[in-house]
Amino acid sequence: MSIKLNCDMGESFGIWKMGLDEEIMPYIDMANLACGFHAGDALIMNKSVLLAKKNNVTIGAHPGYQDLVGFGRRSMSCSNEEISAIVLYQTGALNAFCKAHGTSVSYVKPHGGLYHDMMNNENVFKAILSAISSYDKNIKLMILSSPKNEEYALIAKAYNISLLYEVFADRNYNDDGSLVSRSQSNAVIDDEQLVIKRIKDLKEKGTLNSISGKELSLATDVLCVHGDTKNALEFIKILRKEITE
Amino acid sequence: MSIKLNCDMGESFGIWKMGLDEEIMPYIDMANLACGFHAGDALIMNKSVLLAKKNNVTIGAHPGYQDLVGFGRRSMSCSNEEISAIVLYQTGALNAFCKAHGTSVSYVKPHGGLYHDMMNNENVFKAILSAISSYDKNIKLMILSSPKNEEYALIAKAYNISLLYEVFADRNYNDDGSLVSRSQSNAVIDDEQLVIKRIKDLKEKGTLNSISGKELSLATDVLCVHGDTKNALEFIKILRKEITE
Amino acid sequence: MSIKLNCDMGESFGIWKMGLDEEIMPYIDMANLACGFHAGDALIMNKSVLLAKKNNVTIGAHPGYQDLVGFGRRSMSCSNEEISAIVLYQTGALNAFCKAHGTSVSYVKPHGGLYHDMMNNENVFKAILSAISSYDKNIKLMILSSPKNEEYALIAKAYNISLLYEVFADRNYNDDGSLVSRSQSNAVIDDEQLVIKRIKDLKEKGTLNSISGKELSLATDVLCVHGDTKNALEFIKILRKEITE
Amino acid sequence: MSIKLNCDMGESFGIWKMGLDEEIMPYIDMANLACGFHAGDALIMNKSVLLAKKNNVTIGAHPGYQDLVGFGRRSMSCSNEEISAIVLYQTGALNAFCKAHGTSVSYVKPHGGLYHDMMNNENVFKAILSAISSYDKNIKLMILSSPKNEEYALIAKAYNISLLYEVFADRNYNDDGSLVSRSQSNAVIDDEQLVIKRIKDLKEKGTLNSISGKELSLATDVLCVHGDTKNALEFIKILRKEITE
Repeated sequence: MSIKLNCDMGESFGIWKMGLDEEIMPYIDMANLACGFHAGDALIMNKSVLLAKKNNVTIGAHPGYQDLVGFGRRSMSCSNEEISAIVLYQTGALNAFCKAHGTSVSYVKPHGGLYHDMMNNENVFKAILSAISSYDKNIKLMILSSPKNEEYALIAKAYNISLLYEVFADRNYNDDGSLVSRSQSNAVIDDEQLVIKRIKDLKEKGTLNSISGKELSLATDVLCVHGDTKNALEFIKILRKEITE
Repeated sequence: MSIKLNCDMGESFGIWKMGLDEEIMPYIDMANLACGFHAGDALIMNKSVLLAKKNNVTIGAHPGYQDLVGFGRRSMSCSNEEISAIVLYQTGALNAFCKAHGTSVSYVKPHGGLYHDMMNNENVFKAILSAISSYDKNIKLMILSSPKNEEYALIAKAYNISLLYEVFADRNYNDDGSLVSRSQSNAVIDDEQLVIKRIKDLKEKGTLNSISGKELSLATDVLCVHGDTKNALEFIKILRKEITE
Repeated sequence: MSIKLNCDMGESFGIWKMGLDEEIMPYIDMANLACGFHAGDALIMNKSVLLAKKNNVTIGAHPGYQDLVGFGRRSMSCSNEEISAIVLYQTGALNAFCKAHGTSVSYVKPHGGLYHDMMNNENVFKAILSAISSYDKNIKLMILSSPKNEEYALIAKAYNISLLYEVFADRNYNDDGSLVSRSQSNAVIDDEQLVIKRIKDLKEKGTLNSISGKELSLATDVLCVHGDTKNALEFIKILRKEITE
Repeated sequence: MSIKLNCDMGESFGIWKMGLDEEIMPYIDMANLACGFHAGDALIMNKSVLLAKKNNVTIGAHPGYQDLVGFGRRSMSCSNEEISAIVLYQTGALNAFCKAHGTSVSYVKPHGGLYHDMMNNENVFKAILSAISSYDKNIKLMILSSPKNEEYALIAKAYNISLLYEVFADRNYNDDGSLVSRSQSNAVIDDEQLVIKRIKDLKEKGTLNSISGKELSLATDVLCVHGDTKNALEFIKILRKEITE
């Protein structure tokens, strides 16, 4: 019942570099690799797959909306068919590099606006499930863990897809289990000691305190860590140690 | 030893339509489907795979340079690694739609500038072979048939990749077996009766007359037909009948 | 107090053709030229400016969201700064071709999702006004005519920008003066005779009947006509005659 | 007869940052601002124009081929019409931001592959001149200074365009005045003291020693400095001091 660490990787593009992929890869379990629509290009995807494989890191597709200049962060109202199609396209593209290097895509974690829309619009969620299910039913879908996990799981089951529940230890949660919006100043927890304390609680009790102090019970398959913040590498090493102990 | 007909398909993009895919698909054997870099988008790729499958048409990936505005027609000096990576990316993306619909990519035919560069630069040829070989050795590579077929085949063999030799019955050939450049006014043969005569020769004798009248011996697995010219549909029906008889 | 006809033009892209620009240009007064973000490329913009100039047609910039595959039709949540910046960018780009050919951009009509967002979000409206105002206060902004025209005009006045009020004679209007949503089956009026009748009313009485029969008073500087529908050219010729009489 | 310093600026894109624009801008005279095709987006162009203006830096358009993933570095065989059109498009777009902030584009310096093609293909050079000339004859064109300066100037004169001659003090030159190709290991001079010595020679004698020691006479309006190398800021400060003294 161990908790894994996942991190967005491969988000450079062309000549532009983002993140410390080489430094961070050894300390995570699962790498969400950009697939060309919001970041990543074919060369970077190839390198990222090699880097993940070398470090025995599980590879996930990180498909996004086709919006390079906006980094896929904003919602775009696509039809359900288009959602399915862009997830298939990107997952298949990444899997080609995996196959070329003797591995495969293990899960899908939608990026940015697409992740947000998936959690807020059942049709988007179903369109993503449908795409994965038609491609490879062994591929899992990573979603935001919440008190509604069972509702999501029931829908996913109809597509024969397993879910991975992700928790953000460095984000504040409302009492209803939703994330405090990034538009509020207290959305992110900067206090590293507090984040570590929260991870301990998740590991030992499976709970996280909401912003008002309410104890939330949250299934936690995987914690999201960030590779592009100040001090990212040092903090990920600490989390790695905390999780592994 | 039958000759097949192949045609570029799925070259619409977004709202813009190109070609008569629905009308022409029933009359061809092999559909080269655009993969998003020079034409085609995820929704169109999905529809094109379904259309090909419904008509029992073999599916080929038609990867190109990433140049929508130039339709992938012009050469771009990519490194060998980038050539391999963009072929892998596009082939994998198309194969995702194939897999979702219970079929698979059978061959790769590079598009436009990439096809031209493959025939004129051994490193580009090898980079494409390398990509296909790493992905799936059952996928064939379609190249321009010429007196140098055996040289190409020898290289391809080192990658365990089979070649498909393509002839353009409506293009004039130089005495050395190369195509008369499109920059010359006599590059294309407009006389439909003459094209049909040339196909008969290919079928019956395996030869094609060069522009000076020299009889060229050309291996012919597949003839390229065009779906976006005036009278395209009617002419393809005639070719279909000619080939099948 | 004449009513003008405007039409979206220059919406081809690369090799893909859209609309009957050459045929329709002689019959309209104002051409909304795509600026590269949702359609149009530099070569097409150049040709379109020349075509408009040759036909003494007033040139408007038709900026859109940067979404080729979606043709700029869907909303994208851009910051106000980004809205201003993409309007400035596209207007300046188009104006370069105008300047090269001795003319200039006379108005801006946002395209698709951006037009919709402008009418539904005052911040978007202001961001567009701000961009135009900083660039050239002689450039007008075309908006959807509605009972709220004066509210819009008041805001525009603060930016020293004049508005052009556009009416869609072939669209049904609700009693409150808003357009019947395209999601409803009766959004568009296919009956050409009825459209002509409505234009007569606009010309003679300045009114348009709502879908329930209520007489709406609508300022009408310009009517929008469509160049990409079946029978578009013939119908535009009829409208031209109707308007000019 | 002072020598100016120019530097590529505004080459970030979306979320991806490149260069130390804010730190370096105070030390240069002319900023070549990317215009969206190889780098730069509308928001970045706006910020870059403001930053240049604040520092009294002359603004140049830095148009490139439309190839984000390749950073506009590779040649693309565009028609002359397309070269003119993409230069007009990008120059007009940048000038919109300049106009909005009360300034204007003073010169054009083509980027990467387009710069290279301009120096090696007279048709490309003429297409660029034609674009600038049609737009604004006060805008200068920056080219690579060489023994052929007068030939270039003669052509430019036919378009009523003035040239700016640029020298790369940190690049080795062949005896014929051409740059040693970057494919050779000695293309770039890393020895800062030697670079400063070369600048002194340019200032005092108008000459530069070729790689074999031959004294080349090179008109020098402007030196190119690089903002994205290690130690860039410190070295630019030294050059600034050297030039100004």
